[in-house]
Amino acid sequence: GGSSESDSEEGGESGGIWAQIKYEALQDAEAEPALASYLYSTVLVHPTLERSLAFHLGNKLSSPLLLPSLLYDLFLGALSASSTLRAAARADLRAVRLRDPACRSFNHCLLNYKGFLACQAHRAAHRLWSQGRHSLALALSSRVSEVFAVDIHPAARIGLAILFDHATSVVIGETAVVGDHVSILHHVTLGGTGLEKGERHPKIGDGVLIGAGATVLGNVSVGAGAKIGAGSVVLTDVPPRTTAVGNPAKVVRGRDGAASRLN
Amino acid sequence: GGSSESDSEEGGESGGIWAQIKYEALQDAEAEPALASYLYSTVLVHPTLERSLAFHLGNKLSSPLLLPSLLYDLFLGALSASSTLRAAARADLRAVRLRDPACRSFNHCLLNYKGFLACQAHRAAHRLWSQGRHSLALALSSRVSEVFAVDIHPAARIGLAILFDHATSVVIGETAVVGDHVSILHHVTLGGTGLEKGERHPKIGDGVLIGAGATVLGNVSVGAGAKIGAGSVVLTDVPPRTTAVGNPAKVVRGRDGAASRLN
Amino acid sequence: GGSSESDSEEGGESGGIWAQIKYEALQDAEAEPALASYLYSTVLVHPTLERSLAFHLGNKLSSPLLLPSLLYDLFLGALSASSTLRAAARADLRAVRLRDPACRSFNHCLLNYKGFLACQAHRAAHRLWSQGRHSLALALSSRVSEVFAVDIHPAARIGLAILFDHATSVVIGETAVVGDHVSILHHVTLGGTGLEKGERHPKIGDGVLIGAGATVLGNVSVGAGAKIGAGSVVLTDVPPRTTAVGNPAKVVRGRDGAASRLN
Repeated sequence: GGSSESDSEEGGESGGIWAQIKYEALQDAEAEPALASYLYSTVLVHPTLERSLAFHLGNKLSSPLLLPSLLYDLFLGALSASSTLRAAARADLRAVRLRDPACRSFNHCLLNYKGFLACQAHRAAHRLWSQGRHSLALALSSRVSEVFAVDIHPAARIGLAILFDHATSVVIGETAVVGDHVSILHHVTLGGTGLEKGERHPKIGDGVLIGAGATVLGNVSVGAGAKIGAGSVVLTDVPPRTTAVGNPAKVVRGRDGAASRLN
Repeated sequence: GGSSESDSEEGGESGGIWAQIKYEALQDAEAEPALASYLYSTVLVHPTLERSLAFHLGNKLSSPLLLPSLLYDLFLGALSASSTLRAAARADLRAVRLRDPACRSFNHCLLNYKGFLACQAHRAAHRLWSQGRHSLALALSSRVSEVFAVDIHPAARIGLAILFDHATSVVIGETAVVGDHVSILHHVTLGGTGLEKGERHPKIGDGVLIGAGATVLGNVSVGAGAKIGAGSVVLTDVPPRTTAVGNPAKVVRGRDGAASRLN
Repeated sequence: GGSSESDSEEGGESGGIWAQIKYEALQDAEAEPALASYLYSTVLVHPTLERSLAFHLGNKLSSPLLLPSLLYDLFLGALSASSTLRAAARADLRAVRLRDPACRSFNHCLLNYKGFLACQAHRAAHRLWSQGRHSLALALSSRVSEVFAVDIHPAARIGLAILFDHATSVVIGETAVVGDHVSILHHVTLGGTGLEKGERHPKIGDGVLIGAGATVLGNVSVGAGAKIGAGSVVLTDVPPRTTAVGNPAKVVRGRDGAASRLN
C-alpha cells in the first residue's frame, strides 16, 4: 500500500526472528493442509513481521464499522515509524518463548497468544495517545478489551520483553507503569483505590512476576525482581526481590515465590 | 423505520445529554478523520440517543445468525416503550462520567464502555424477561456474555445510575437485586452458594461500591452505602455504611474503604 | 456434505436428548417469532445433535480467515469418528441441566452456554492434539479463548458430565486432568507454579466442585468429591470429600462447603 514505512531495519534482520517465524509457518502449513490458507494469509505472504502483525491485528480487531484496512494502516504506520515498537514486538516474542513452557514456537505466539497481540495493540494505542490522538487511542483499546478481554488504558506505560500469559481479564489503569522483563498472568489488576487523583495506579519494576488473579491497587511501587503470589491483594509497596502473598498481601523476604508463577 | 417509538420525550431534551454527546462526537470527528466515518454512523446521523444506542448495540451484539437489524428493532422497541429504560441510559451515562476519573466524555462512555453497553442490553433483556419472552431474553444475555464478557441473568434487577467499571468477567445471578447509584468493578460475582433454591443471590443496597474481584454469594444483604474491598469473599450480611474486606470478608466499621474502589 | 460420519448411533436415539432439544426449539420458535429463523438454522434443520453442534460451533468460532465451513467439517468429523465425543456432549448437557438451577432446557444449554460450547470445542481440539495435529489444535483453542474467554490447553484431559458454569476467564493448563462429574465455576484457574517442568498442573478427581475465582496451582491432587471454596488459592493436595477454603486454602473436614458452589 501507500504506507510510508521503511523496511530497512527489518530487511537487515537476516536469520532473525522473522525468518524463524516464516520457517515455522511453512512447516505447519505442510503438516496441516487445513491451516495452509490461514498461514499463508497471516504469515507467509508478508515480507516483514510488521506487515504480518498489522494484518493479523487489523483482522482481529476489526468490526463492521472499523474496517480491517483502516486498522492495518494504523498498525503498520505505527510500527513503521517507531523503532521502539518494532524492537518491542521482537522482545515480547522472545520473552513469551523463553518464559512460557507451553509456547512451542514464535509463530504459535504471533498467531495465537491474545496477551501478545493485546500488548502490541496497546503499544500502538499508547503511541497515538502520546501524540494527542486520544479518541482513536480509546477506540482501539476498547476493541482490545472486547476482542481479547484485556483492558489496558492507552496512557499506561509498558516496558519491553513482557509476557502476558493467558491474559484474560487483565486490567491496567491510566497512570500505571510496567518495567521491562515483567510477567503478568491472567485476571491481574493494576488499578486505583478511588481515593486518589492524578497518579493513582501501581508502578511495577523490572523483572517482576505477578501471579494469576493478583490485584495491585493504588500508586504503590513493586520493586525490581519482586514476585506477587496468585490471588494476592497488594495495597502497599513491595520491596525489590521479595515475594508478597495473601489478602491483604504480606511480604515474605528471601522466600522463593512458590505459587507466584503460573503457566 | 416502522418502529412505533415516540421521540417526544427525547425531542424535549433541549441542551441535554444527547446534545452534549453530539457535540463531543463532532469535535472528535474533526480532530480525528480516521474516526469520522465511525462517529457519523454510530452517533452523528442519529436523531436521538435511543437510535444511536440501539444501532451501536445491534452492531456489537449481532452475529451471522442474529442480524443487526433484528437487534436494532429489539433495542429501539424496548427503549421507545419504556421511559424507565430511557432514563436509565442517561442516569448511567452521568454516573460513569461522574465516578470514573478515566472517563473523558459522555461520547467516550457511549461508544467505548462495554460495562455501560452490557448494562443497557441487560435492561432490554430484563424487560423481555418480565414480559415472559424468556428464550429471547436468554439469547440476548448470552450474546452479551460472549461479546462483553459480562454475564447478567435477564431476571436480575438492576437499579439506576450504575457504573460497571472495566466490567470484564462480571457475573450476576438470576435472583440478584442491585439498588441505585451502585459501582461494580470488574471480576465481581453476585452469585449463589448452591445450597439454596429460589431466592439465592445477593441483594445490594443503594450507593454500594464493590471492588475488583469481590465475590458475594448467597441471599445476603449488602446495606446502603457499604463498601466491599477488592478480592473479598462475602458470605454474610454487610450492614449499611460499613466496609467489608478479606476472605472470608469481615466488616470494618467506620473505616473508610481503602482499596475498595478501583478506577 | 461429504463427511464420513455415521449417524447410526444418533439414529438409534429414539426419544433421547436430541428429540427433546428439537421439541424445545420448536416450542421456542412458536412462542418467539423473532428467534424462529435462528432456531431453525441452529437446531431444527439438522438431522442430528452432532450436525447442530458442529454448525453452531463453526459459526461461533469462525473468523474472516477461519471459515465456518472448515470448522463445521472439523467438528463434525471429530464427532462422527468418536463415540466418546458424542457421549460426552450428551453427558455434559445432562450435567448442566441437572446441576444449574438457572438452566431451563437442554436447548437453552446447547445454544447459550459458552461453558458447554467451549468444552465441546476443547474435546475436538484435544482429539486433534492426541493425533499430533498440534498447530490446528492450538489455533482452535486460541479461538475458543477469544470468543468464549475460556482458555483450555488442548492437551488437558477433561472427563465426562462436566458443568462449566458461566465459564468466563476459566484457564486450564497443559498437563491438567479433570475427572468425571466435575463442576467448575467462572474465573477458575488450574495452573502451574512456574517452578516445575513436565507434569505441573492439578489433577482433579471425580465429582469435585470448584467455586468461583478459585486458583489451584501445581501438580497437586484434589480428591474425589472434594469442594474448593470460592476465591480459594490451593497449593497442596486436598483429600477426597473434604472442603478447602481460604488464601492459602486450608482443608475443613466434614464441613459442608458453604460458599463453594455458585449458580
